[in-house]
Amino acid sequence: MRIVFPLYPGFTSLDVIGPYEVLSRLPEAEAVFAAVRPGPVTGEGGVTVTATHALADLTEADIIVVPGGPGTREAVSDAAYVAWLKAIDATTTWTTSVCGGSLLLGAAGLLTGLEATSHWTAADLLPVFGATFTLQRVVFQGKVVTAAGVSSGIDMALALFARIEGDDAAQTVQLHIEYDPQPPFDHGSPAKATPDQIQRVRKLVMG
Amino acid sequence: MRIVFPLYPGFTSLDVIGPYEVLSRLPEAEAVFAAVRPGPVTGEGGVTVTATHALADLTEADIIVVPGGPGTREAVSDAAYVAWLKAIDATTTWTTSVCGGSLLLGAAGLLTGLEATSHWTAADLLPVFGATFTLQRVVFQGKVVTAAGVSSGIDMALALFARIEGDDAAQTVQLHIEYDPQPPFDHGSPAKATPDQIQRVRKLVMG
Repeated sequence: MRIVFPLYPGFTSLDVIGPYEVLSRLPEAEAVFAAVRPGPVTGEGGVTVTATHALADLTEADIIVVPGGPGTREAVSDAAYVAWLKAIDATTTWTTSVCGGSLLLGAAGLLTGLEATSHWTAADLLPVFGATFTLQRVVFQGKVVTAAGVSSGIDMALALFARIEGDDAAQTVQLHIEYDPQPPFDHGSPAKATPDQIQRVRKLVMG
Repeated sequence: MRIVFPLYPGFTSLDVIGPYEVLSRLPEAEAVFAAVRPGPVTGEGGVTVTATHALADLTEADIIVVPGGPGTREAVSDAAYVAWLKAIDATTTWTTSVCGGSLLLGAAGLLTGLEATSHWTAADLLPVFGATFTLQRVVFQGKVVTAAGVSSGIDMALALFARIEGDDAAQTVQLHIEYDPQPPFDHGSPAKATPDQIQRVRKLVMG
């Protein structure tokens, strides 16, 4: 069970590590961090994760998890990255994304005619790739699974784990990572935040 | 505002990246990944994060976030790591931990007489360090803040962000990382899981 996390400079680390913490606990999981050029890859805020493999050396995967982040804008124009997504998708059982990672799936032509989600600030961009944005936290469309912003990858990965290994096994992982969320506030979606908070995040993300 | 994440081999990556994703958004935050020996540090499951600094070179921090993980057992006996925790705590505004990271704070003598939390499987170990285990997700005791297992670091960091910058700013970060958790199951704590699930996780963690 090979799970590939294709990194690029400026990826958001929780987009990757949330699903990693869940999916790396699949039976016989082989979690692989990869990038166009292997080596250290620096994400949003400066955190650096090692890509042990070059994407070009990976020709098969059971699952891919494509992250978003401020670097998405450049990655979307990286022909090697996008072409790899398109090619690897022909081999996957599950093709997934978190946050703006869905824009990369879109750029690879993998969302045409599908419903999909993304970070809420990217709602307008998904139709560019022939997808319909839906403000859900996790969207299953056949083998393509998209998750909303950043932290939603944990929910996506648990739902995916359950599809693969059953509810009981997924619940056991949930207990293992003690995922019993108790956020101190209830402002985690645009439906729940103030207009001013929405404006501030939009400015931060869109520049 | 220097936030230090002291890594060690076998740390659990979500313990680190959950709080990082929140706290690195503090105004003028400088998030620093460090270890006894700088360079790549491999965490649970194989993920590798770069420690850009040697702990010995860091003599001041505003916040530290100590992770847990399978490597905690060895880290607890690493005199250089534990002595650094004790020394840096004299300079911090906030000394925090996620999951089994509280055992490392305990080993450094920083939990004596305090209530604290940890991964639920570690409940029996905290009293060894003079702390009282409490099955809460986040425990504030003066400047010492401990969080429960793995994913709880996100809740801890949001609560801490609010103490530092106020509720509105913390809510804006919550919206930014779209932390509107919708886990597919409600088995994330021992109070909610089945006895068999509890037994399985205990075996995995305790060996």
